[in-house]
Amino acid sequence: MSLLVVGSVAFDAIETPFGKTDKIIGGAATYISLSASFFHRPIKLVSVVGGDFPKEKIEMLRQRGVETEGLQIKENEKSFFWAGRYHIDMNSRDTLTTELNVLADFHPVVPESYQDCDYVMLGNLSPKVQRQVLEQLKKRPKLIVMDTMNFWMETAWDELQKTLKMVDVLSINDEEARQMTQAYSLVKAAKKILSMGPHTLIIKKGEHGALLFRGNQVFFAPALPLEEVFDPTGAGDTFAGGFIGYLAESNDISFDNMKRAVIYGSAMASLCVEKFGTERLETLTPQQVQARVQEFVDLVQFEIELEN
Amino acid sequence: MSLLVVGSVAFDAIETPFGKTDKIIGGAATYISLSASFFHRPIKLVSVVGGDFPKEKIEMLRQRGVETEGLQIKENEKSFFWAGRYHIDMNSRDTLTTELNVLADFHPVVPESYQDCDYVMLGNLSPKVQRQVLEQLKKRPKLIVMDTMNFWMETAWDELQKTLKMVDVLSINDEEARQMTQAYSLVKAAKKILSMGPHTLIIKKGEHGALLFRGNQVFFAPALPLEEVFDPTGAGDTFAGGFIGYLAESNDISFDNMKRAVIYGSAMASLCVEKFGTERLETLTPQQVQARVQEFVDLVQFEIELEN
Repeated sequence: MSLLVVGSVAFDAIETPFGKTDKIIGGAATYISLSASFFHRPIKLVSVVGGDFPKEKIEMLRQRGVETEGLQIKENEKSFFWAGRYHIDMNSRDTLTTELNVLADFHPVVPESYQDCDYVMLGNLSPKVQRQVLEQLKKRPKLIVMDTMNFWMETAWDELQKTLKMVDVLSINDEEARQMTQAYSLVKAAKKILSMGPHTLIIKKGEHGALLFRGNQVFFAPALPLEEVFDPTGAGDTFAGGFIGYLAESNDISFDNMKRAVIYGSAMASLCVEKFGTERLETLTPQQVQARVQEFVDLVQFEIELEN
Repeated sequence: MSLLVVGSVAFDAIETPFGKTDKIIGGAATYISLSASFFHRPIKLVSVVGGDFPKEKIEMLRQRGVETEGLQIKENEKSFFWAGRYHIDMNSRDTLTTELNVLADFHPVVPESYQDCDYVMLGNLSPKVQRQVLEQLKKRPKLIVMDTMNFWMETAWDELQKTLKMVDVLSINDEEARQMTQAYSLVKAAKKILSMGPHTLIIKKGEHGALLFRGNQVFFAPALPLEEVFDPTGAGDTFAGGFIGYLAESNDISFDNMKRAVIYGSAMASLCVEKFGTERLETLTPQQVQARVQEFVDLVQFEIELEN
């Protein structure tokens, strides 16, 4: 059994109130893969980079159990590049630059060696490209999780709807859930989205935690109150990576296990934001992950005995 | 053992996207007392109303175990009146009218029969009036909880600081915590506030739940994701009432018991906002309270076994 991850592998340049970076590695699939690798290996990556992407970073991913047969390297082109600046509250950001480069004309190819994948994470990308990956799978995976963003709601609504019908779990943030449904109440928004295809919905609320909806069941995972959020870039992808990595390793897609997966995802995201870019994920130890999960347990656990 | 509650007993007129009310009863002490009465009786009320305040509403409070010897009735004056309008997101509101009336010159008197109080809830009022209540107590209560708001931070900072030094628990919202400390991070804000007097701090985040801080310990209680928030008026006071009522009844001020109290407070607040004003609190049954607390348990409970 293995885990297929599709999404961007790219460069970011980030400004936060705490400082700024030059071009550093980023991209949804990078964060997802790094985060998932703490729980499950191998990870089978489908993506595309240009000749400018550092070979040692691809090797770094390989050493973490990321298979790269499905990673196209277009030597004469440039990698996707995003530059952004976060506001003081870290909840909003301005995009300064978006250069699609190799992503402008990306045709994903799923290698034969990836056909055993039972778990699929569709990182944020054009919904058409996400669907092209699913269409190449000969066997319906056990679980397909999709991330997306407001940009695709605005520019590719019909494609998004088509892809949504093929997935099991959608992971989006609260603003996106409201935009997608025109409902302010997240409970109402969740009901609408769960009628669009996925049986399970995750609504990420950043510093306010995450909600998990399935049928009439709902679960809430807090965010850890942090003294400093250094750089929120990749937090959502890191969450998704922890979520799918934990599910793939435990091979259990029950609601109760998804609760645990949301906690693991939240713990990974809380670690990611402590440093710029992928730095924290690249230096993290499994013991630090376990300790952070313990902090989440301590944060929300209480005992109440109710009369029945 | 009993519970002393001080705060406004007043009239509100409320507009929300769902409708508007004429003058209805409100006030911090009204919500606190109604909410606390589900857990602990008697409640000993210190407040002031005008002759316009409906006698049957005072009787309604008495029937819920609220003693009113400390409730001054100024027959020739008018009760405090507040009118406000909520925005569509229900997280912000405009004050349309504030008529202090009897509150303009309120000198609280703590009757001799209240001197047995071990638990004190200082509802939102001038910090000077809050302190005048404490100064009349011959025995230091076991627990003093204080609510306040941005208005007092802006107009009575020194008085607020004096009163803060006399209390055990402060309950404020996230904006107020930031305003009070000039710190954006709630963890940093909490550290600063805990150096101002109280040993425990509650930061209410509205639809995003509440945080409880003491020393290096932190607990997070979610808000229940609701399909509709009908009227947020009194939610914070209802939270405080559930919190202090639960603590007074269980007579246990350990951090673990405060966690439970925060959950009970949150459950009461989630019920309050389902109807205009005090309507939901006046018609609620203890069984409905228990069922709501069970929803909170279900919302956040998960099991993770960590290796030690």
